Amino acid sequence: MNLRLYNARILPFDTADARIIAGELWVKGDRIALVGDPNGAEPPAFDREIDCRGNLLLPGFKNAHTHSAMTFLRSFADDKPLHQWLHEDCFPMEAHLTERDVYDLTQLAVLEYVSGGITAAFDMYKFVEKIAECAIDCGFRIVLCGAINDYGGTKQSLRAEHDAVNGKHPLVSHKLGFHAEYTTSEALLRDVADLAHEYREPVFTHISETAAEVEDCISRTGKSPVAYLDSLDLFRYGGGGFHLVFPMQGDIEIMKARNLYVCTNAGSNVKLSSGIAPIETYYEAGVPVAIGTDGAASNNCLDFFREMFLVSGLQKLTVGAAAADAIKVLHSACSTGAKMMGLDDCDCLAVGKQADLIMLDLHMPNMQPLNNIAKNVVYSGSKANVALTMVAGKILYERGTYAIGVDPEAVYARANEIIARIRKAEGR
Amino acid sequence: MNLRLYNARILPFDTADARIIAGELWVKGDRIALVGDPNGAEPPAFDREIDCRGNLLLPGFKNAHTHSAMTFLRSFADDKPLHQWLHEDCFPMEAHLTERDVYDLTQLAVLEYVSGGITAAFDMYKFVEKIAECAIDCGFRIVLCGAINDYGGTKQSLRAEHDAVNGKHPLVSHKLGFHAEYTTSEALLRDVADLAHEYREPVFTHISETAAEVEDCISRTGKSPVAYLDSLDLFRYGGGGFHLVFPMQGDIEIMKARNLYVCTNAGSNVKLSSGIAPIETYYEAGVPVAIGTDGAASNNCLDFFREMFLVSGLQKLTVGAAAADAIKVLHSACSTGAKMMGLDDCDCLAVGKQADLIMLDLHMPNMQPLNNIAKNVVYSGSKANVALTMVAGKILYERGTYAIGVDPEAVYARANEIIARIRKAEGR
Repeated sequence: MNLRLYNARILPFDTADARIIAGELWVKGDRIALVGDPNGAEPPAFDREIDCRGNLLLPGFKNAHTHSAMTFLRSFADDKPLHQWLHEDCFPMEAHLTERDVYDLTQLAVLEYVSGGITAAFDMYKFVEKIAECAIDCGFRIVLCGAINDYGGTKQSLRAEHDAVNGKHPLVSHKLGFHAEYTTSEALLRDVADLAHEYREPVFTHISETAAEVEDCISRTGKSPVAYLDSLDLFRYGGGGFHLVFPMQGDIEIMKARNLYVCTNAGSNVKLSSGIAPIETYYEAGVPVAIGTDGAASNNCLDFFREMFLVSGLQKLTVGAAAADAIKVLHSACSTGAKMMGLDDCDCLAVGKQADLIMLDLHMPNMQPLNNIAKNVVYSGSKANVALTMVAGKILYERGTYAIGVDPEAVYARANEIIARIRKAEGR
Repeated sequence: MNLRLYNARILPFDTADARIIAGELWVKGDRIALVGDPNGAEPPAFDREIDCRGNLLLPGFKNAHTHSAMTFLRSFADDKPLHQWLHEDCFPMEAHLTERDVYDLTQLAVLEYVSGGITAAFDMYKFVEKIAECAIDCGFRIVLCGAINDYGGTKQSLRAEHDAVNGKHPLVSHKLGFHAEYTTSEALLRDVADLAHEYREPVFTHISETAAEVEDCISRTGKSPVAYLDSLDLFRYGGGGFHLVFPMQGDIEIMKARNLYVCTNAGSNVKLSSGIAPIETYYEAGVPVAIGTDGAASNNCLDFFREMFLVSGLQKLTVGAAAADAIKVLHSACSTGAKMMGLDDCDCLAVGKQADLIMLDLHMPNMQPLNNIAKNVVYSGSKANVALTMVAGKILYERGTYAIGVDPEAVYARANEIIARIRKAEGR
């Protein structure tokens, strides 16, 4: 399919400022063929031409940490702190999930992603090959993250899923990873490090999400989680940490030395009463910051507008009103997330890049007047503004209509069936 | 108009729990004629019957503190703390506003309110009669709040606007009020108290929004703002405070003795780096809590979904994960706000009450599965879920279409004209 999006405002993010240009954007197959002024360029034969009516095109949001299939626990496991929430609600309920359940619950997440302008997810959950299959079937871009730990997974299984997913299809890839320092033995961590060295690949994991986790790691190992994991040489080829709410002295130096990314999950950290990550400090130190929703069991929605306001607002609250301004946060959401996930072709709107983009409707009261469009998006935007979501040149969502190959009502019905079945099995 | 909304889920909030019933809701003129099971009741002749498809009807959100016409400063005055924001951006820009500007900018806010499920606003701004006229023309419900202070307004002007608005039209009313303790001389405060005693009316104002304001009041008067204002006998007939981020020792006892309401404005307090109001403490003490967006110059959107998540989440962050649960917060949003504003007929869905209600679309991915619908609304909802907004029996918004008597595009154009004119006048 070749598409022409014309009469647009375009925020390309080919630089870190939020420069907005007027013009059009051409899509040829899965890639961007033109951004801005056609300037007499020869147009390909377009299958469709869309009048953007002055609305805003920008790179899609990159959800750099999520557990997509946890949608079944939305509004089931609330109002509890992390440890209690995990052990009382998540673990026992998740034990009942089948591969088919995970496929179907990931579909529900994908519906939510595309309706909210998210074009890629960095997904950590079990049955990664099933999740990859779901992503391919939906036309959605998913990077799987290894999640092995003492309760499941081995060096062999991590290698097997890494090999099985990578190269399978352009929409899916796999990164080495494990659940967390506090759920993974040193022997298994050394196995992950071995794989990382063999593949020359980065490693990703939950790090320093709660104060208790950090204290516990220090008392066991004498080191912060960042320092402990680094001492096992896990980050020789980079990687990143999800959450990183509580960096200790020296951690930021390690993160910079190892080219680690932070993915912040403000909504989840708030709702689980974990804390506020020092995002402004990361920005100032030059640590790249991506944004994630975490799973729907904790957050409870997969909504980047809420996340972006929280990332900015919580820094303003704790550091000062000038902290974490809209432009920095929007760049994190659209661009840095892509780089963290290894999606170097999805970080901006430029010729030759993947056509992973969204259109935000500015003809809505929350976007008016147009004093500063990028600030409007972060400080005032909502998923109601998402008019179109495109992944790899294919429109997956357009003004309430989905094109991911499944009837949304069937997905909702399945999600309700799954949770009903598991509640019955658990007697709750 | 008589309307039948059938095949609905209904969260009536006629009690403080979030009981949801199945059934239908009849509207006769501006009032509710039936809720739940018709049980053989004789239906009136309906002008329209709407199949709700299992979607949720609930009382509309009551925006209990806002400055509607500040929409012109959206994304213009950002990333600054309150004092600097007010004196550098708000005051000089606002000085240029005409009565016509305020009418037009209030229209823009009303578009945003109804698209986000807000059915009434407690509006503090200049030119109150013009705002009342706008509300009546739009069919929207506005309670005006007096805002006199040392820079404008007298006992006479406050009396005049109170008398002019009250009784003018069922959609508008006026409450006595002043801007804030720190902008209003003791002589003028005593004038407001005199009026309150004469009319036997409550009084509303900004109170204890920032730590600096509280410290300054204590150093000048030896009392906290709450105690100081109470010492002037302003609250003999009740009233309430907007913000109340920093109550001092003894303040809550005064608030309870005087039947004061708190209206919290979490988004604004976050963005201006003011602080987190102790909402869970208010809930526990039995102080009634309403919710407001504040103006678009600080927040920057007028979005109750964002507000509700912030009100809940910030308490979870500071008090614990169980604090300020979804049901309490939703009750504050739908019901307590109405009571604070004196809208006793708009607090719940029951026979004889005003038909001020909204329909939320549950057939959307962020509302599935239906583990707990009220929690879905607060923890996962967005204005994209608002399918219908009705005020006084009239549908003002329905799935992207507005019926407030004006073309939204004309409102957007006027808002852009106004800010362009004022920027030019101010040379910025």
